[in-house]
Amino acid sequence: MKLVTFAVGDEKLVGALEGEDVVVLDVPDMRSLFELGTPVQDHAERLKTARRFPLAAVKLQAPIIPKKIYHSAGNYAEHAHEGDRSNWVAAIKPWIVFFQNVDAIIGPDAPIVYPEHLTKELDYELELCVVIAKPGKFIAETDAKDYIGGYVIFNDITARDIQRREMQSANFSFSKAIDTFCPFGPWIVTADEIPDPYNLALELRVNGEKRQISNSSHMSVTLPQLISKFSPTGFSAGDILTTGTVSGVAAFSADPQAWYLKPGDVIEAEIEKIGILRNPVISWKDAYGVDAPEFQGF
Amino acid sequence: MKLVTFAVGDEKLVGALEGEDVVVLDVPDMRSLFELGTPVQDHAERLKTARRFPLAAVKLQAPIIPKKIYHSAGNYAEHAHEGDRSNWVAAIKPWIVFFQNVDAIIGPDAPIVYPEHLTKELDYELELCVVIAKPGKFIAETDAKDYIGGYVIFNDITARDIQRREMQSANFSFSKAIDTFCPFGPWIVTADEIPDPYNLALELRVNGEKRQISNSSHMSVTLPQLISKFSPTGFSAGDILTTGTVSGVAAFSADPQAWYLKPGDVIEAEIEKIGILRNPVISWKDAYGVDAPEFQGF
Repeated sequence: MKLVTFAVGDEKLVGALEGEDVVVLDVPDMRSLFELGTPVQDHAERLKTARRFPLAAVKLQAPIIPKKIYHSAGNYAEHAHEGDRSNWVAAIKPWIVFFQNVDAIIGPDAPIVYPEHLTKELDYELELCVVIAKPGKFIAETDAKDYIGGYVIFNDITARDIQRREMQSANFSFSKAIDTFCPFGPWIVTADEIPDPYNLALELRVNGEKRQISNSSHMSVTLPQLISKFSPTGFSAGDILTTGTVSGVAAFSADPQAWYLKPGDVIEAEIEKIGILRNPVISWKDAYGVDAPEFQGF
Repeated sequence: MKLVTFAVGDEKLVGALEGEDVVVLDVPDMRSLFELGTPVQDHAERLKTARRFPLAAVKLQAPIIPKKIYHSAGNYAEHAHEGDRSNWVAAIKPWIVFFQNVDAIIGPDAPIVYPEHLTKELDYELELCVVIAKPGKFIAETDAKDYIGGYVIFNDITARDIQRREMQSANFSFSKAIDTFCPFGPWIVTADEIPDPYNLALELRVNGEKRQISNSSHMSVTLPQLISKFSPTGFSAGDILTTGTVSGVAAFSADPQAWYLKPGDVIEAEIEKIGILRNPVISWKDAYGVDAPEFQGF
């Protein structure tokens, strides 16, 4: 089942896709649906109402605003290797995890606003994410599969110049947490639709040009390993766990300046069996009607 | 005004201190109170009900569960210097910021559960925190003072061995985000009660022994600078911003092994004009009735 959050006029609704339609679910928001328990698709089925809209007529929003986003990294050796080749600040090893900014989430087709006064090196990172099915902590690896409620796409927008500055103190977060830097979507695909999450084609395009091409089979850890490893922090139902990006980011390319994002670019982050998360990059002026302040960096 | 969240039987209530009493406020939770707008103490005054309880008879809880906790660091040179002296993994510079685990929050007197299978180096860190008064993003330093709604104490519980392991990839988060590692309290003191936040005595004691003794006057940045600097991420009302710890943590002491926390310890984190945040450390067995799993680290 594909679960969406969408707007019709001033109304914000949760729905399930049925063919070309969205059927409205009787639930206040997506997190509440996950909080009802597992399996989420059974609750969704039960909560279908008689209201339906053509998918083409509604405005999709970020499918869920979770309580927490676990941002993991280092789970694709190919991305670690491209970092090493580019003399990146530090090794990109498995088990990197930090929390993302839930207030920076945007949905499909929503613009990423380029903060031109803060960065000159805006990058993209395609990531497969798990939506956590139920609360839990200190979860054994053998039990962890039951915590996978669904999958969603994340485009981890990153200001590389700021990230390098942050890493001088052996941490980074702000560079990935600026307003509009967390596009998620286009919908949540429930876990039952993807019995094998380790064989999904991954592709990110900028203005149609292929930049990241990989497959989830390249992941060097399993989803239950990630869930178990991070579970001492305590999951809430609906939390998102990102699984790290693949090779092909601008910063580690042959010509980073040519590949960094610019206002006017359109990014398509695609994962097989999930869909395409499309977001334009717009200038500060297009967003706010005034020129960006003078460049100051971080 | 001192604002509390507390339990009476099964009821969870928000209140304001009046002498030895707590007066119940007509609001579902503390975040909702902050979402009403500024100044928060005026809304609290208006929402006082006829219900009151002796403070001694109620069980205080974490005063707020914010949408986000901004964990900043590096704002006291004395802590950076003790890190340098101990050959710490990286320099501790200003403008370190990352998000904390809102699901790891505990309140005053609640136990910190020692995860003996994960760490052997449990440390404390006393921090003064700001509670953000209202939503905002891209805030100028000159406007930032208006975003200070109140103050609260944080004891940043940290597994140093895990933190060193994380910092090999130039990031850390998990080591400070394990279940029960985020004690906040004992209450929120509204900003009007502390016109000068740069002259507050800070003291952390373990079993009565003074470990951290400092003053907020030692802070090398201002609160408006922190708020402005991090504001491109977008604040929500009620968000917490920590301001970094002072010297005297166990890891950088003359005898870290002697100073690391142990089950049975009681920590008192005190800040002048706010109060004392007291939390015991208990063993895994005392928390769960079974021995901790075999040591595995992170």
